[in-house]
Amino acid sequence: MIIHKRAGFLTLLFTVRGSVVPRVLPQMILLALFSSGIVFIYQYHTFELPEFSLTPFTLLGIALSLFLGFRNNAAYDRWWEGRKLWGSLVYETRAIGRATELLLMPDSARRPLLKLTAAFSHAMCQSLRPDSDSGPAIASLLDAKTTSKLMQSANPADAILREMARIVAKEHELKRLDTIAVNMLDQHLTALAGVQAGLERLANTPMPFAFTLLAHRTAYIYCFLLPLGLVGNALWLTPFFTTLVAYCFFGLDTLSEELEYPFTKEGANHLPLEAMCRVNEISVAEALGEKPPVPLQPVKHILS
Amino acid sequence: MIIHKRAGFLTLLFTVRGSVVPRVLPQMILLALFSSGIVFIYQYHTFELPEFSLTPFTLLGIALSLFLGFRNNAAYDRWWEGRKLWGSLVYETRAIGRATELLLMPDSARRPLLKLTAAFSHAMCQSLRPDSDSGPAIASLLDAKTTSKLMQSANPADAILREMARIVAKEHELKRLDTIAVNMLDQHLTALAGVQAGLERLANTPMPFAFTLLAHRTAYIYCFLLPLGLVGNALWLTPFFTTLVAYCFFGLDTLSEELEYPFTKEGANHLPLEAMCRVNEISVAEALGEKPPVPLQPVKHILS
Amino acid sequence: MIIHKRAGFLTLLFTVRGSVVPRVLPQMILLALFSSGIVFIYQYHTFELPEFSLTPFTLLGIALSLFLGFRNNAAYDRWWEGRKLWGSLVYETRAIGRATELLLMPDSARRPLLKLTAAFSHAMCQSLRPDSDSGPAIASLLDAKTTSKLMQSANPADAILREMARIVAKEHELKRLDTIAVNMLDQHLTALAGVQAGLERLANTPMPFAFTLLAHRTAYIYCFLLPLGLVGNALWLTPFFTTLVAYCFFGLDTLSEELEYPFTKEGANHLPLEAMCRVNEISVAEALGEKPPVPLQPVKHILS
Amino acid sequence: MIIHKRAGFLTLLFTVRGSVVPRVLPQMILLALFSSGIVFIYQYHTFELPEFSLTPFTLLGIALSLFLGFRNNAAYDRWWEGRKLWGSLVYETRAIGRATELLLMPDSARRPLLKLTAAFSHAMCQSLRPDSDSGPAIASLLDAKTTSKLMQSANPADAILREMARIVAKEHELKRLDTIAVNMLDQHLTALAGVQAGLERLANTPMPFAFTLLAHRTAYIYCFLLPLGLVGNALWLTPFFTTLVAYCFFGLDTLSEELEYPFTKEGANHLPLEAMCRVNEISVAEALGEKPPVPLQPVKHILS
Amino acid sequence: MIIHKRAGFLTLLFTVRGSVVPRVLPQMILLALFSSGIVFIYQYHTFELPEFSLTPFTLLGIALSLFLGFRNNAAYDRWWEGRKLWGSLVYETRAIGRATELLLMPDSARRPLLKLTAAFSHAMCQSLRPDSDSGPAIASLLDAKTTSKLMQSANPADAILREMARIVAKEHELKRLDTIAVNMLDQHLTALAGVQAGLERLANTPMPFAFTLLAHRTAYIYCFLLPLGLVGNALWLTPFFTTLVAYCFFGLDTLSEELEYPFTKEGANHLPLEAMCRVNEISVAEALGEKPPVPLQPVKHILS
Repeated sequence: MIIHKRAGFLTLLFTVRGSVVPRVLPQMILLALFSSGIVFIYQYHTFELPEFSLTPFTLLGIALSLFLGFRNNAAYDRWWEGRKLWGSLVYETRAIGRATELLLMPDSARRPLLKLTAAFSHAMCQSLRPDSDSGPAIASLLDAKTTSKLMQSANPADAILREMARIVAKEHELKRLDTIAVNMLDQHLTALAGVQAGLERLANTPMPFAFTLLAHRTAYIYCFLLPLGLVGNALWLTPFFTTLVAYCFFGLDTLSEELEYPFTKEGANHLPLEAMCRVNEISVAEALGEKPPVPLQPVKHILS
Repeated sequence: MIIHKRAGFLTLLFTVRGSVVPRVLPQMILLALFSSGIVFIYQYHTFELPEFSLTPFTLLGIALSLFLGFRNNAAYDRWWEGRKLWGSLVYETRAIGRATELLLMPDSARRPLLKLTAAFSHAMCQSLRPDSDSGPAIASLLDAKTTSKLMQSANPADAILREMARIVAKEHELKRLDTIAVNMLDQHLTALAGVQAGLERLANTPMPFAFTLLAHRTAYIYCFLLPLGLVGNALWLTPFFTTLVAYCFFGLDTLSEELEYPFTKEGANHLPLEAMCRVNEISVAEALGEKPPVPLQPVKHILS
Repeated sequence: MIIHKRAGFLTLLFTVRGSVVPRVLPQMILLALFSSGIVFIYQYHTFELPEFSLTPFTLLGIALSLFLGFRNNAAYDRWWEGRKLWGSLVYETRAIGRATELLLMPDSARRPLLKLTAAFSHAMCQSLRPDSDSGPAIASLLDAKTTSKLMQSANPADAILREMARIVAKEHELKRLDTIAVNMLDQHLTALAGVQAGLERLANTPMPFAFTLLAHRTAYIYCFLLPLGLVGNALWLTPFFTTLVAYCFFGLDTLSEELEYPFTKEGANHLPLEAMCRVNEISVAEALGEKPPVPLQPVKHILS
Repeated sequence: MIIHKRAGFLTLLFTVRGSVVPRVLPQMILLALFSSGIVFIYQYHTFELPEFSLTPFTLLGIALSLFLGFRNNAAYDRWWEGRKLWGSLVYETRAIGRATELLLMPDSARRPLLKLTAAFSHAMCQSLRPDSDSGPAIASLLDAKTTSKLMQSANPADAILREMARIVAKEHELKRLDTIAVNMLDQHLTALAGVQAGLERLANTPMPFAFTLLAHRTAYIYCFLLPLGLVGNALWLTPFFTTLVAYCFFGLDTLSEELEYPFTKEGANHLPLEAMCRVNEISVAEALGEKPPVPLQPVKHILS
Repeated sequence: MIIHKRAGFLTLLFTVRGSVVPRVLPQMILLALFSSGIVFIYQYHTFELPEFSLTPFTLLGIALSLFLGFRNNAAYDRWWEGRKLWGSLVYETRAIGRATELLLMPDSARRPLLKLTAAFSHAMCQSLRPDSDSGPAIASLLDAKTTSKLMQSANPADAILREMARIVAKEHELKRLDTIAVNMLDQHLTALAGVQAGLERLANTPMPFAFTLLAHRTAYIYCFLLPLGLVGNALWLTPFFTTLVAYCFFGLDTLSEELEYPFTKEGANHLPLEAMCRVNEISVAEALGEKPPVPLQPVKHILS
């Protein structure tokens, strides 16, 4: 995530970091060259160009705007839902810390339970960003045996939840928790599992692929036809105008794609998963009365 | 569901799988021929064509875009709700595995309960895709007698839930579960039933039929009138432009229809029900300490 | 509700059932005659017509499209909420069947409780469709005395819930249910009451009347002015074009109105309340181990 | 709230009650005069008018439509949320009647508890409509001492909830309710408090004032500039067209403002709070076995 | 927040407070000067201007309107969610007052618990408005030692929740609360933590920075190009028209930015956090039978 102070209106015009400009620049340059070519042909009549009015472009442009708008909306909803789910992770981690205290759970069971809760976030982060490595973070929280067992399982986050359930079941068996207490802890575990299910849904079910195709194709065909419609009208301003429209459409297209995958670190608008994992480590340490680690800080305005 | 790596912008332009192009191609070709005919008549004055400006088309085009946009939005919401409900199924399956462990349920009752939970997904899948056959999958989970009893009932998913309730009631009768434990398990069963109700609602209540009619008819009449408006303007580019507009409108129309029925395997944007059933089998096997089956893999980019 | 197989693109063009065409046909014919008159006057200069460009119509047309779109959206939400509430009714009915089994409730109390649950749907249906008669259906479920008492009360659905509460309270008094069990059943009764409140809200609180007025009036004035703007442009195609626009706008207007009242049987896009009542009767019969009645079938594609 | 039978299409064109026409009529007349003046000046060249095409108006008109549409959407959501909250009030009132019966609460505690529940709606209504007087209604439900104590407190609704809590706490102290029963009643009281918080939020936090300003100003400037753009085009039809556009824009603006404040009786699209208070009185009377009062009837189509 | 009586239509045209006009005035003046310059150049042919029709502007203007509309919608949703979360804070504060009474908690534990609840709002407010100082407010509620301990912790709101949990755990240890009561209080504490997580999410995760960039840049480039398109059409009215469009676009852009950060006091459309903290102090005082402080009043129409 980009961390910026709220900037003045001039600064906003020239910021590059966080912008989608770098990602659509090649296409924009290509388009600028192409439409300059069109203008050249039109001007020097190298050969006859089909000439037609802008009205069909207006019609198609509105349909395209609506569709890109819809896709953008849906992608933003996914991104925001991802953020909400991580927010729930933060507060369920604290809730487990509190509930185990309220239930007077002995430290011998509570400490491993909470450490596993902190490890759960790291395992979640690993599963959402396959090229990151949560191994060391998990190893620093759990003993070596548990770590290696968990890291070998197909779905470590799931294995951690099973491990946590085992601890609670043990306490129940030892009659140190009654059925009501078990129910209460089960609800918090179910909440964690619900967050996991939600995050896996977002990561594994992108928007229907046909949306991406329809948006992408129409946007490109549209922008490469536009100079034909503009040239009789705007002449040498055609490349400039075409590029501006392309900035809007390609930019929205690219941004929607980035937000559709809210976890991957590509682009700069991803969610700060590692920083939130750290927040959870802090919550667990504070609940156990240990010295908490420091929060993660943004590096070059980016919180990873 | 289509499983694709995130593709570059050129690849996206030429992908066919997952696209709606194949499904609207016949209509697009028909329209291209029709509008070529219009151009021919216009050019060679075979007979007098009504000529009119594009402005009424802009107006109607915007109304149509808005309406197709609304329908697309509603259809996508249905698709996404279907996915959410299956996500709940995944995590409620795990929750039942966990809750029965926390409540120290004896294996003699827990094992059949969890097997039934896994069978529930298959029964759900069968009911949403009437031409698939979940019989073998269910038979591999349950004993022959239970299977045949369940498969004969009108609504197997429902019969499975009743069977599960019977097991819990038995344990209650034997005083191995207290009222609180029964309440806790009832909540998980009710959650399964809620998922079932939601999925049946999506499968049995399509969007009001009049929407489909209004969208479909207006889109077709519009596209077949469009050449009359374009021909004076775009001449030989008319067929090209008309086909592009038709790609947008028919494509959106067809895509909305596919998403409206998120479970049927027609088209390639359906939800991967069978893969999710397998996930549930894995969860149940892991909860019982059995060797889990392998996850389903996409076949030719399609996860069924 | 209309039950259709998914139809091909040609069939969709000519289906009448479920379409709003029959309901807006008179206005469309009137408009076609009116605009033919305008064309005639324009052509033969019977008298001078005010002539003006289409641009103001575009502007107003877009505003109108947006507004009709909003209203359509809100009406569809109401329709879909109605369907969701009936879905909850279906699954709460099953949940009460299951909960009473789990709580080992004796048949003497469970049977009347479940029969009342099935009767609840019928009472709900009666209250949403005042001109239907649920009396016989309720009488077939309950004994004569209870039936006549319930049917005389101002709000039979409410009276049924009170009757159900009485049975549970009795069991509590007899110490056959503990406080936890009572709480559990109370939650299911509260869920039924919540469904009732939601359905009554939809039935008794239509959208603000001013919406209907604003949409209706603007659509009509717009369509009757449109020929004046089109005639100079489209000449003899004016009636055709005007009628097409009117089909869109009046159609959307009428459809929104139908969906705004999702229960009344007028139009063909209503929810199949009677079929869902039958589903509940089946659930109750199955929970009691009785022979269930057969599901309702659509009559001429319509499920009532 | 307006209570209308569903009207035919002609009736809808001429209804005044519930319409926003009366509230925007002065501005519409002013605008009609103003644009007639413009037409006069234009026709007789009293002095030179700036002349410009309609295109900039189309652009601005679309932006304005979108913005008014957004505001209308948000205002309707507030109105509908208000209605939902009152629906919850209706069903929580019934739920408290049922829960206290299920818990076998003695009449000496139950009666005052339920009477306070009915009084709660009246206090809520009073707080949402400061110029109404719920005093008599509350006095008819409670004894004189309690009434005067409640009416003197800063927030009577809140004081009633505290009074109700006191009764439940007393029963708990007397061991007539166990912790589970207390929890169950607390949940219903919390639900009432949640409704109160929601209603106070709607009443005290209007939409950001800058929205109203931006919508209102742009709409007015737009409509008073429009004749300048239309006059060259529509001539003597200009006043008519301008007034039609103004009807749309001012009408939507005014309607949004009415819906933004869903409780005040100004305008005719408010929610029928008094009728719903009466519904709650009926529920309480029925739960206590008393003769219920009659439901409120609409006066001149308006349910207050 | 601005507190206004509902104003008449004339007043609305000239109000400054709460309007975004002051914040976009410099840019509007700059733009007015710039477009006057364009008109001058065009009129006196100082040098040749590129001349082009308005059609491309219409197209781009619609795309921009849709995008600004989307952003505005999302920003308003954040603002309204912030308000809802504070509403929950108000009613959870009251709920804790009620629950502790219902559970007959002794005053020695209840008083500090409730005082901490009131302090929680202030700590929350401090964390959302870093430049405000909640120290004195918290100090007046708690004893000096607790205050200084809390204010030193990294996240005082979190520390307060831990402190509250400690009190409840103590009562549980002393057997003055059973597991059910602990569960009930835990739910209210979890609700407070949920509000905290939601508020921190809104404060720390602004909308993707690329949205702000895309909206801002396109709006500015658009408005500074617009005079080129208008000048041939509107001549000396160009500056006026351009400025009106800019008022719409820049105004919406700025308003969205204000609503995106619903807590900071910049601008006048922020939420009245301090007033709501006071409401919570009043609730706590009333629950404890102490004399409540007076509600905060707006200063110059602004409630801070």
